[in-house]
Amino acid sequence: MDQAQASGAKPGHPPPQSTLHEVRTAENSAAFLLPKLRSMKESNAHLKLLDVGCGSGTISTSFAKLIPDGQVTGIDVNANIIPRARAVAEKAGVENIEFQQGSVFQLPFDDETFDITWCHQVLVHIANPWDALREMLRVTKRGGIVAAREGDYESECVWPELPGLTAFHGLMAGLMIAGGGTPAAGRQLLSWALKAGAERRQIELGYSAQSYNTPNERTILSQGMCQQLRGGGFRDRALKFGLEVKEDFEEMAKAWEEWAQREDATLSSLHAEILVQK
Amino acid sequence: MDQAQASGAKPGHPPPQSTLHEVRTAENSAAFLLPKLRSMKESNAHLKLLDVGCGSGTISTSFAKLIPDGQVTGIDVNANIIPRARAVAEKAGVENIEFQQGSVFQLPFDDETFDITWCHQVLVHIANPWDALREMLRVTKRGGIVAAREGDYESECVWPELPGLTAFHGLMAGLMIAGGGTPAAGRQLLSWALKAGAERRQIELGYSAQSYNTPNERTILSQGMCQQLRGGGFRDRALKFGLEVKEDFEEMAKAWEEWAQREDATLSSLHAEILVQK
Repeated sequence: MDQAQASGAKPGHPPPQSTLHEVRTAENSAAFLLPKLRSMKESNAHLKLLDVGCGSGTISTSFAKLIPDGQVTGIDVNANIIPRARAVAEKAGVENIEFQQGSVFQLPFDDETFDITWCHQVLVHIANPWDALREMLRVTKRGGIVAAREGDYESECVWPELPGLTAFHGLMAGLMIAGGGTPAAGRQLLSWALKAGAERRQIELGYSAQSYNTPNERTILSQGMCQQLRGGGFRDRALKFGLEVKEDFEEMAKAWEEWAQREDATLSSLHAEILVQK
Repeated sequence: MDQAQASGAKPGHPPPQSTLHEVRTAENSAAFLLPKLRSMKESNAHLKLLDVGCGSGTISTSFAKLIPDGQVTGIDVNANIIPRARAVAEKAGVENIEFQQGSVFQLPFDDETFDITWCHQVLVHIANPWDALREMLRVTKRGGIVAAREGDYESECVWPELPGLTAFHGLMAGLMIAGGGTPAAGRQLLSWALKAGAERRQIELGYSAQSYNTPNERTILSQGMCQQLRGGGFRDRALKFGLEVKEDFEEMAKAWEEWAQREDATLSSLHAEILVQK
């Protein structure tokens, strides 16, 4: 979520591209976890759930609604996003939730604190993601679950093939690598969980498609990208990572606008999903 | 299915790599179509369904079980596979089914014959796939459905990264292109349906992941690939298309065997799915 702040949003207020991130809920982003969450809730209504890299807290808030007698904790490395997450939860009338700043590499919690420890689009952005997963396993109770969903950007299918979108894809992959992450995260998620100390028999692995096909979905995606391209968010990140910025950001924004208008337009990518039974 | 015959299988008997194709059913390959099929069946128990490119008929046969008072027709361009499809249906005790040879570009049926016209992994292999879809629309009744599911091979995620598998991916993509198809089929499926004359409002588009992650799934995939690599199926196709065969087929087969044994191994790809309401 650091790019949200880099583009000048005030804490507690929706950042310019918030729609793209804030449409995310447990239902649309953690569907694979929900059957397990519901069965765990049947034997324990007071589940404790940790959302690692919670950002503006829309997923955390929807988790809190699903476990009204439980407790959700959202944590994000970016302190500036925490007030926005609190505002999202307050607006939703959710009280069984708290947010705090912290790093996935040093979670400020005792061993075996949570029944469910969750992250989404976090490991894709960091170096040594297995250390993050090891830390998530540490704070999870025995009999609990670590659940992660990470995209594989190299799997992304986009149509039509517009030069501005091809350039954009290269820019984004470069930013992921420069930031220590990888555009081939999804396919490695299982291997990272094994490297974190989980055994294969503890891990359920699946994939789902995340797509933007309807006019409304295409508009949300296109607007989010254009706001980052024209507002300087992506340029600031590139400069921060010391990348030489050759791309024409306005050309990329126009390509996203054209894409959103085309009736033959589609975008989809694979997301890997693991449930690790501790 | 032509590669099945190229490797020397006898009509009516399982071809060597049959397991890989013959695990396919309506339930695992046409899940997105089944809710629509069930609702159509409620108002008409006598649905007529056409399976275009039916191959060895396992999907056709499971469709026939789902509409016991309806009628399934399977058609394949390869006459040699038809006896095998009949044997599969007979073994399953299914009688409301028939198979015949024919081309998707000239379907031997009157206009508006079928309630549901289906294909899977057919358009990916042919030039001018919009002509095939136009023909599928022609033989479908008004108020009926054309349904297609086509993979996007370029989206495929494989881990670990073994050199033999990278070489294999290049070989397969080359074979698809040489045969007139494309390894980027899935992302183009919507555009092909539009080019076939459907309007955007008639088309529902989605994507699903097809994955091989469990030991059993990995074994089935690996054995299917090894049989084609060692049995000459892929080599015969390459030579048929006039491709220069430089690859070491045995090295690729060994890579598949190693992949099947690795506990960190995974493979997934996006498949596009359309329902066109005629």
